[in-house]
Amino acid sequence: MIVPPETYNRILALEYRHARVLDEDRLEEWPELFVERGVYKVVPRENMGRPVELPILFCDSRAMMRDRIDSLRRANVFNLHQPRHVVTNVEVLSTGGGEAEVVAAYTVHQTDLEGQTRLFGIGQYRDIVVLTGPEPLFREKMAICDTFAIPNLLAIPL
Amino acid sequence: MIVPPETYNRILALEYRHARVLDEDRLEEWPELFVERGVYKVVPRENMGRPVELPILFCDSRAMMRDRIDSLRRANVFNLHQPRHVVTNVEVLSTGGGEAEVVAAYTVHQTDLEGQTRLFGIGQYRDIVVLTGPEPLFREKMAICDTFAIPNLLAIPL
Amino acid sequence: MIVPPETYNRILALEYRHARVLDEDRLEEWPELFVERGVYKVVPRENMGRPVELPILFCDSRAMMRDRIDSLRRANVFNLHQPRHVVTNVEVLSTGGGEAEVVAAYTVHQTDLEGQTRLFGIGQYRDIVVLTGPEPLFREKMAICDTFAIPNLLAIPL
Repeated sequence: MIVPPETYNRILALEYRHARVLDEDRLEEWPELFVERGVYKVVPRENMGRPVELPILFCDSRAMMRDRIDSLRRANVFNLHQPRHVVTNVEVLSTGGGEAEVVAAYTVHQTDLEGQTRLFGIGQYRDIVVLTGPEPLFREKMAICDTFAIPNLLAIPL
Repeated sequence: MIVPPETYNRILALEYRHARVLDEDRLEEWPELFVERGVYKVVPRENMGRPVELPILFCDSRAMMRDRIDSLRRANVFNLHQPRHVVTNVEVLSTGGGEAEVVAAYTVHQTDLEGQTRLFGIGQYRDIVVLTGPEPLFREKMAICDTFAIPNLLAIPL
Repeated sequence: MIVPPETYNRILALEYRHARVLDEDRLEEWPELFVERGVYKVVPRENMGRPVELPILFCDSRAMMRDRIDSLRRANVFNLHQPRHVVTNVEVLSTGGGEAEVVAAYTVHQTDLEGQTRLFGIGQYRDIVVLTGPEPLFREKMAICDTFAIPNLLAIPL
């Protein structure tokens, strides 16, 4: 499915912005990348296709995302790891009703205070992007984790 | 070399689709991304520039690719590792005769049944993409492996 | 910020070319990707925001870049590691005066003579790209390293 290059690039820009607000510790801007009743969830790949998906993280509104960020801010006074979200292989699978169904690969590395970097997790995004507003927004973002032996507690969003 | 954005995006879509059919275990669709007499080969970087390339994997038709997939299906009743192919740095080096010469970087990670992910291999694709059909197809795809100390038997295509 | 797709793709092409001249050991072409008085610097993330940035590598002209390459050629008779630079998440933050402010994520792996690959470093590029010439060129390229526990002496550019 090939969308006009302008549309594809606007979707890319949303995906990269999502990565960057997380990596630059601008977590308060994260919910603004979703529509008001947007859904964000993290699901281990092994749970996909089961009757119950059992997400390890689930938010179904900006308000719930903001609550989560508030909790993170209280829990992690100091952000001990620098994350780096890489988004690649962005494909538009279908469009319709002003929305696009998008898949992508993500890779997250973390660097500790000693400057050592390790792979934190890899997986796939499956997103629904609303294209009708001035800027594209996520109606749904699902991170399906290949890596579920996650070395730290999952703190910031994937 | 800058091709029209529509053309570039169609090439991107082919590269990403190649990655995704492998990662989603839709191996039977893999030969369909090549022309009938398409070539797929995997060559360790250390062999490049030698009189004989000695590919560690070589197919020169869809039929041969299908045979390989059949063998894989018989040998690996259960796919023990989840692969994740990331394709980046996609460059069109030249075009002509309805074809494009394309290079890209690839990174393949594998996740085992315990959910632990490790780097499987990294390298470069050097591809010839046929642009004249309704969808672009590979006339040739060569994976040049930087990583040749490959931890498992090379099972699925890179 | 969305630029015309042609402009975005020309910026991508410059970023990918930068990666490829380094990976293909065509280091002498590297300074040609900058304007004559172009700046290249490598700064550990921990130094960002300090009164003095203390780059671990700094060049402010093509001439200085050429000197650096000459030194590298004399010091490393044999290039012992195959690097692989992956550039992703390329975003244009602003444009004006014929220039674009660009950020991207980079990941560098190195493969040794035994064919084993390891992560060398990850971080962010912050670049100023001049768009007015026949080909885009870097007026400034800054690599901000998340990874500062760099396993080898930093030899080739990031």
